[in-house]
Amino acid sequence: ISGRPRKSPYPMISVSEALEIILSHADQCTNKVVPMQDALGFVLAQDIIANDPLPPFPASIKDGYAVLSSDGAGVRVVDGDSAAGCRPEKLKVSSGKCVRVNTGAPIPLGADAVVQVEDTELVKEANDGRTELEIKILKAPSKGQDIRPLGCDIAVGQKILSSGTLLGPAELGLLATVGVTNVLVVSKPTFAVLSTGNELQEPGEALREGHIRDSNKTTLKALLRQFDYPVVDAGIAKDNPTSLLTSIRSALNQADILVTTGGVSMGERDMLRPVLTSDFNAEIHFAQVFMKPGKPTTFATCQFNGHKKLILGLPGNPVSAVVTATLYILPLCRKMSGRSTYENTCIRAKLSTSIKLDPRPEYHRALLCWSPGIDLPVAHSTGNQLSSRLLSMASAQALLKLPPATSETQSLPDGTVVEALLLNM
Amino acid sequence: ISGRPRKSPYPMISVSEALEIILSHADQCTNKVVPMQDALGFVLAQDIIANDPLPPFPASIKDGYAVLSSDGAGVRVVDGDSAAGCRPEKLKVSSGKCVRVNTGAPIPLGADAVVQVEDTELVKEANDGRTELEIKILKAPSKGQDIRPLGCDIAVGQKILSSGTLLGPAELGLLATVGVTNVLVVSKPTFAVLSTGNELQEPGEALREGHIRDSNKTTLKALLRQFDYPVVDAGIAKDNPTSLLTSIRSALNQADILVTTGGVSMGERDMLRPVLTSDFNAEIHFAQVFMKPGKPTTFATCQFNGHKKLILGLPGNPVSAVVTATLYILPLCRKMSGRSTYENTCIRAKLSTSIKLDPRPEYHRALLCWSPGIDLPVAHSTGNQLSSRLLSMASAQALLKLPPATSETQSLPDGTVVEALLLNM
Ligand SMILES: [Mg+2]
Ligand SMILES: [Mg+2]
Repeated sequence: ISGRPRKSPYPMISVSEALEIILSHADQCTNKVVPMQDALGFVLAQDIIANDPLPPFPASIKDGYAVLSSDGAGVRVVDGDSAAGCRPEKLKVSSGKCVRVNTGAPIPLGADAVVQVEDTELVKEANDGRTELEIKILKAPSKGQDIRPLGCDIAVGQKILSSGTLLGPAELGLLATVGVTNVLVVSKPTFAVLSTGNELQEPGEALREGHIRDSNKTTLKALLRQFDYPVVDAGIAKDNPTSLLTSIRSALNQADILVTTGGVSMGERDMLRPVLTSDFNAEIHFAQVFMKPGKPTTFATCQFNGHKKLILGLPGNPVSAVVTATLYILPLCRKMSGRSTYENTCIRAKLSTSIKLDPRPEYHRALLCWSPGIDLPVAHSTGNQLSSRLLSMASAQALLKLPPATSETQSLPDGTVVEALLLNM
Repeated sequence: ISGRPRKSPYPMISVSEALEIILSHADQCTNKVVPMQDALGFVLAQDIIANDPLPPFPASIKDGYAVLSSDGAGVRVVDGDSAAGCRPEKLKVSSGKCVRVNTGAPIPLGADAVVQVEDTELVKEANDGRTELEIKILKAPSKGQDIRPLGCDIAVGQKILSSGTLLGPAELGLLATVGVTNVLVVSKPTFAVLSTGNELQEPGEALREGHIRDSNKTTLKALLRQFDYPVVDAGIAKDNPTSLLTSIRSALNQADILVTTGGVSMGERDMLRPVLTSDFNAEIHFAQVFMKPGKPTTFATCQFNGHKKLILGLPGNPVSAVVTATLYILPLCRKMSGRSTYENTCIRAKLSTSIKLDPRPEYHRALLCWSPGIDLPVAHSTGNQLSSRLLSMASAQALLKLPPATSETQSLPDGTVVEALLLNM
């Protein structure tokens, strides 16, 4: 203990350097085939080509009558109808006649325009009082009017989705449209979340003296689940090498990425880094980042059972843990999942009050308020930003990126425009 | 058929009127108890009060030494250590002495400041070469320095979360912190999604003549699943009263809200409204909205097996279906789930090119591009906005709210600032 370093032996790097190092180790996961209905949120690993046109026949855009545009306005004999789902080749329209069509129905042969029912009048009906015999077209139709030509939405052979596309609801709808029921996607990385600390206990147990309840696993598991990444709970490890070794080994057996909290400060019981290097032959890529909160954030990689594993050692303070997870783990997840843009979305916002700057760049929790007619949202601080105070993260919508204080600039006045990282996108 | 109305008998209302009517029928779902770990995305239905303080003892913010601040700088005898998780009452610091502490550890009795290890030097170690005997404090500490007082993050009896709070990762972390393992939340509404149309077939079947594959159920189920609403697939109904009746009855047996697509235009085979009114005694609240796409959007309510059911009859065109679902169903879901803000998030964006206006207010699909140093994102149209063309929705991030054309204003020039409804928030 007396011989331990009294300052971190690791160089202090910037947040952007730290993220760059993490992303340089983020290999895209392997591809797998999943049922289309389960592919929401995955990235496509193949191009999707349409094998048939949409619509597969010229189709009506309106409920109305298929006509010859050259007939102009005036009376038409109603010669049957073409309903959605009927066989397109059965009907034919000749001059002076029309066929009733509904939206999506095939256009009968000969017709080159549709007149919507609103632009027609009944002229003559059959004695049964139900069948239309003649109608009147009120406005002369133009050629092609209210007809979707064959293949106008999707042509045969058209690439409708490219490899690398994130599959959202509309993209799944497109897969359904072209009849793709199984699809090749990029797998997602799997996570294990481990809390460390002699003082921690699971939230369900009666609080013991000198202890606090662990919240980090709950928060981080929820954060990963919120973005649909598979995560296992790796429990709580004690601050001793044996407990850490056992917990880490079990976690690495179950996951691609291990996220730990605690054990990365300068205390003599902060043993994550020594255990990683000595027992897992891990390489520590960084262990000090110039940021608040989150300074002791640690990143390591190792080979384990023939696989490359990534280890993110986050600080144990609850706010530090969730802020650093947002800054580093979400982009990492997105890159490994094959997304082309993996950065967190940042917008600009106006400070509602002046904010005192910290010597380190700070990620300040805030609510955003959009008002009609105003370009930028107003950012309201969630209050006391102590990194143990998880309340400052509750209901926060954004992390404001505040610059470090300088001798000239100790605070930002209200109305200053700052970058705001959106927490739910 | 000949006697049918040739214009919709329903008045045309605005989008905001339509949404107001829907929300006026959105009763909050009942409360239920769920395990805290499963409560992500639910709204809290109880206040959460802390029963113990956090920290439960004065705790160190740093790795270092607990001292008496009145001793100032200089040499101290190291008198044991206080580790995280140890019993706080065991140690005591007196003048001239110090106790080693690590982050989160209890502060020994007598001490009133912590000096971080970086601001100390080793003066004397034991013959074993491992035990610290004396250290030197380099900077005189101030009283209370780097100590979190008992209860400073959370006080006993403090309300830490209010009924009505949406439970995100940090909120679940707070529940864990105070030991709440089961929690009262507002249930979510359950959905059934039904497609209608003789021309439709399931995506997995070989394409039959005159048919197209149904994409709407896939898109809408994914949209609802994306926001974690439970949804059942109610299949495809044919355009006849018997098939509709059977499908709707089965759907209403399984869900609070029925979402249908198709069957709401002016065609003689558009039978959703007649079946709803005659067979389910439903009240049609509106059936025409002044918007593009989505004009024939229909909203009805009925009593079924003693429960109030909501029915949203969306247009069958794929883009109309997903746009109207976004505009109406997502706010409805949020209100029924107990959220205090249920509107879709709208920001402002600048058009990248000029856009021709439609006679109706249009919801135009667009990508958003944020550039560093620029206040507003630039909105790029996704191209051809034909409502059958689901490709225009793929990868869209926003719906631009475009005003209807007037005789003076037929288009908006590039650079115009418009409202943009965010699709993924
Ligand atoms: Mg610790
Ligand atoms: Mg139809």
